[in-house]
Amino acid sequence: MKFCSHCGAPVTQKIPAGDNLPRHVCEQCDLIHYHNPKIVAGCIAEWEGQILLCRRAIEPRLGLWTFPAGFMEIGESTEQAAARETKEEAEADVAITSLYAVLSLPHIGQVYLVFRGQMTAPIYKAGSESLEVKLFPLSAIPWDDMAFPVVKDALARYAADVRRGQFQLHLASLSDRI
Amino acid sequence: MKFCSHCGAPVTQKIPAGDNLPRHVCEQCDLIHYHNPKIVAGCIAEWEGQILLCRRAIEPRLGLWTFPAGFMEIGESTEQAAARETKEEAEADVAITSLYAVLSLPHIGQVYLVFRGQMTAPIYKAGSESLEVKLFPLSAIPWDDMAFPVVKDALARYAADVRRGQFQLHLASLSDRI
Ligand SMILES: [Zn+2]
Ligand SMILES: [Zn+2]
Repeated sequence: MKFCSHCGAPVTQKIPAGDNLPRHVCEQCDLIHYHNPKIVAGCIAEWEGQILLCRRAIEPRLGLWTFPAGFMEIGESTEQAAARETKEEAEADVAITSLYAVLSLPHIGQVYLVFRGQMTAPIYKAGSESLEVKLFPLSAIPWDDMAFPVVKDALARYAADVRRGQFQLHLASLSDRI
Repeated sequence: MKFCSHCGAPVTQKIPAGDNLPRHVCEQCDLIHYHNPKIVAGCIAEWEGQILLCRRAIEPRLGLWTFPAGFMEIGESTEQAAARETKEEAEADVAITSLYAVLSLPHIGQVYLVFRGQMTAPIYKAGSESLEVKLFPLSAIPWDDMAFPVVKDALARYAADVRRGQFQLHLASLSDRI
């Protein structure tokens, strides 16, 4: 950020009175501009022991696989965001069944909220941001071609929970080293 | 938002190609500015059957009660944010034990992530944003003087869970009517 989004004057970095972190502060109107982490809502969409993955048609990580996930919008709930992303990227309808994982990525200011969703029918196809959409049995997940470490991490937790026959809520913070 | 934070030129609202919502788009550098929901991390800090509440020293809702809660910062995890807010507002140390509630407020673009935390000692006092900090038994929670509907909602869920002797994760979207 270089300019104030309110008045257009330049901003400088300084620690406002009563604060303890540097912020972008406007030199003209004194507005403090805060930058906050973004929520990425994702969905592990299930159908008869298989899960729905999308091969990305856009950068970053074009050509690699992910479950449907994207930035939450203002005006929707976290569950609605996860279902919307599933509709947009995989043209599939899901009923969200539970929150599965809350994964913080402090180094890039993102929090993944990953839900489980029951597909209402085995109907899906590539949305505009996907090259290909496919149901995978857990034994065939393309582990070496996952788009993002956080997606691979969430799916590894999911596969382990399926193996031991018990799901739990996963709360974790992923470093930039994974 | 009236001006581009990247180049300082005016922005206009329009629906970018391939998108389906109006965004602030820069007339000069074509940058699309997205606005996303913010995460509020909160903590129900527990000590021997009592919970820690703070009376707000700042607007909005000056003088009313809340559990420690505030906007998550970039560079921290959700759990760290909840513990930090407890330290800042109540000068109390907690060990976060679980995620208790994920409450979406779509009308104002906020998501509350409310954790349970075990106080490491019965030591607390008013931080700079609090007038007063106090441990309350559940029978004495000041229900009529709560700062925000979402705080009252989360505490009502908590009190009900304590009464029936079983905690669960609460996932809900609160309308602007509560
Ligand atoms: Zn300004
Ligand atoms: Zn611009």
